Amino acid sequence: MIKRRKTRTICVGKVKIGSKYPLVIQSMVKLATTDIAGCVKQINALSAAGAQLVRIAIPTRQDSIAFAKIVKKVKIPLIADIHFSPDRAIEAVEAGAVKIRLNPGNIKDKNDIYRIIDCAKAHKIAIRVGINEASIRNLLKDTQPAKRTNLMLKEMAGYIRLFEKRGFNNIVLSVKSSDVARTIESNIAVAERFPYPLHLGLTHAGLAEDAIVPASVALGTLLWRGIGDTIRISIAGDPVQEVKIAKKILTSIGLYKSREPELIVCPTCGRCQWDLIGFAQKVKKLLKEVKKPLRVAVMGCVVNGPGEAADADIAVCAAADKGFIYKKGKKIATVRQASLFVALEKEMKNL
Amino acid sequence: MIKRRKTRTICVGKVKIGSKYPLVIQSMVKLATTDIAGCVKQINALSAAGAQLVRIAIPTRQDSIAFAKIVKKVKIPLIADIHFSPDRAIEAVEAGAVKIRLNPGNIKDKNDIYRIIDCAKAHKIAIRVGINEASIRNLLKDTQPAKRTNLMLKEMAGYIRLFEKRGFNNIVLSVKSSDVARTIESNIAVAERFPYPLHLGLTHAGLAEDAIVPASVALGTLLWRGIGDTIRISIAGDPVQEVKIAKKILTSIGLYKSREPELIVCPTCGRCQWDLIGFAQKVKKLLKEVKKPLRVAVMGCVVNGPGEAADADIAVCAAADKGFIYKKGKKIATVRQASLFVALEKEMKNL
Repeated sequence: MIKRRKTRTICVGKVKIGSKYPLVIQSMVKLATTDIAGCVKQINALSAAGAQLVRIAIPTRQDSIAFAKIVKKVKIPLIADIHFSPDRAIEAVEAGAVKIRLNPGNIKDKNDIYRIIDCAKAHKIAIRVGINEASIRNLLKDTQPAKRTNLMLKEMAGYIRLFEKRGFNNIVLSVKSSDVARTIESNIAVAERFPYPLHLGLTHAGLAEDAIVPASVALGTLLWRGIGDTIRISIAGDPVQEVKIAKKILTSIGLYKSREPELIVCPTCGRCQWDLIGFAQKVKKLLKEVKKPLRVAVMGCVVNGPGEAADADIAVCAAADKGFIYKKGKKIATVRQASLFVALEKEMKNL
Repeated sequence: MIKRRKTRTICVGKVKIGSKYPLVIQSMVKLATTDIAGCVKQINALSAAGAQLVRIAIPTRQDSIAFAKIVKKVKIPLIADIHFSPDRAIEAVEAGAVKIRLNPGNIKDKNDIYRIIDCAKAHKIAIRVGINEASIRNLLKDTQPAKRTNLMLKEMAGYIRLFEKRGFNNIVLSVKSSDVARTIESNIAVAERFPYPLHLGLTHAGLAEDAIVPASVALGTLLWRGIGDTIRISIAGDPVQEVKIAKKILTSIGLYKSREPELIVCPTCGRCQWDLIGFAQKVKKLLKEVKKPLRVAVMGCVVNGPGEAADADIAVCAAADKGFIYKKGKKIATVRQASLFVALEKEMKNL
């Protein structure tokens, strides 16, 4: 199975990030930070959905003031998202941020970066040291997209030296791009070279329907190689969706123990003699009430039906007229196909 | 970028499968094969959506007869999906199938397999030699799921020997499982050991909303390693969706040249002072009319807006009041935020 790349352990409040600890799911608040009640509600929703860290943007002094109030109203550790202004970073740390997200390329004066580092050190908080391809676009100039990985790696090396020289290594790294191939390549390159945990994400991935596939491909590929210690799915939409997709990606490769049931359904073909897809949709609705990791299989025929049933907690399989129910692979009932759903519902209640 | 694993080339009618050729997208008819008009319509829809091969189930003699009529009515090469019956395989080949999908484990008598092989050889067609974890469940018995990869590999080796001994090697291999980790592991194992092209799929992945993430993770991970020559996304739903998801997966890692526009959208955060997500949804609707690979970016603020604009054919970025339009990275217009959509629409028409 997956062997995680060995990294240092980074402390982010009560959360630890690194290869010794489970993958950490994070997301971001999408409301104006000055909307304190709205932000608190969204942060709590993200926490309830399974986020372990939530990031929030602090672009202005007003946002710093609001952030200080929000920190006190929520239980989940907060990360301050900082660009351009060292003052905002320091205000956020003093207000209780457990981590700062910083793209050092956005802060011109080295001394300002040192000021943030010293403040983070004094408060024992973490810093994410990030590069976003779009943020360093000036630096990349006319470089062909496919050739930018090396430039991004070089830039990252410079940032890391800056932090290490100042005696600070409670850092998480991120290299982001809206391009899947560059996201994979640049993260592999950074993972090979530096011992720090990695924050993975495919940036600016788009609306949910556009983002799910490329985010799953990019993060799945990296995670399978053991790369990645905290992830954030970026979609233009409800951040709770981001957390749900993150959980699905991690669950699919055994990096997260979902408490949700799993529904195996055959894709159907000419062999299927009943409305399997409609049936599966009804089972899906039933499962919305279930909060344990049940494996349920809805299969169309005998080709793979009994086989999937063997690995499922409960399964059904049917022909034109008859339907069969299996529990842990053992056939426990044969009913008319038309009565199969009611029979399954009853069996599931018994579980 | 991706370096495909070297494989033999397999001829499937006019389609070639193997590392010298682009990835082949396939899907499967989900109607009763005897519904000839329905099947022809679905096959044509799959072809129009981008499938290069379509598979169809032939469980009974009536299906063989219907298949013979369907073959004559469509242009796209058809694959016959055969289980249990060697007669159905031979009828399908004689009717014009360019490939047979066979899980040899389902055909008890070796001589029946030889009969199919000889017929395929005489008609110069291909055979997919498949294993499905659920199909060989009896063989796997009480083996823990995580330990089944070796058994599946051993079984596959036996099948391949059978075909090679009979002097037939126009074969494509597949090892399928509804488990992502096992799908990845067993395909890596088969790819390392045999020179034949690989058909990738995550089987029984479920309803579309459940299947997209695990299918993208499993296939993305394998494809990034250069493994996979033809793919089929299996979802319990409209097969045209299967083709669309397949295209998205391949496009995301540069293995398919999409003619569809790409919409980059920032996920928004507290910095965003306008309804970016609503705006992006409107742009998405506009793009439905566009049939060329345009890269469009809708960005919320100056942090990454200009950077993404530099890589986009057309981009917008806005603050509370003002909106900016970029063409190939150059700012070409500054308008009131409220007029931004109309201005963008006009610019897109000029493209």
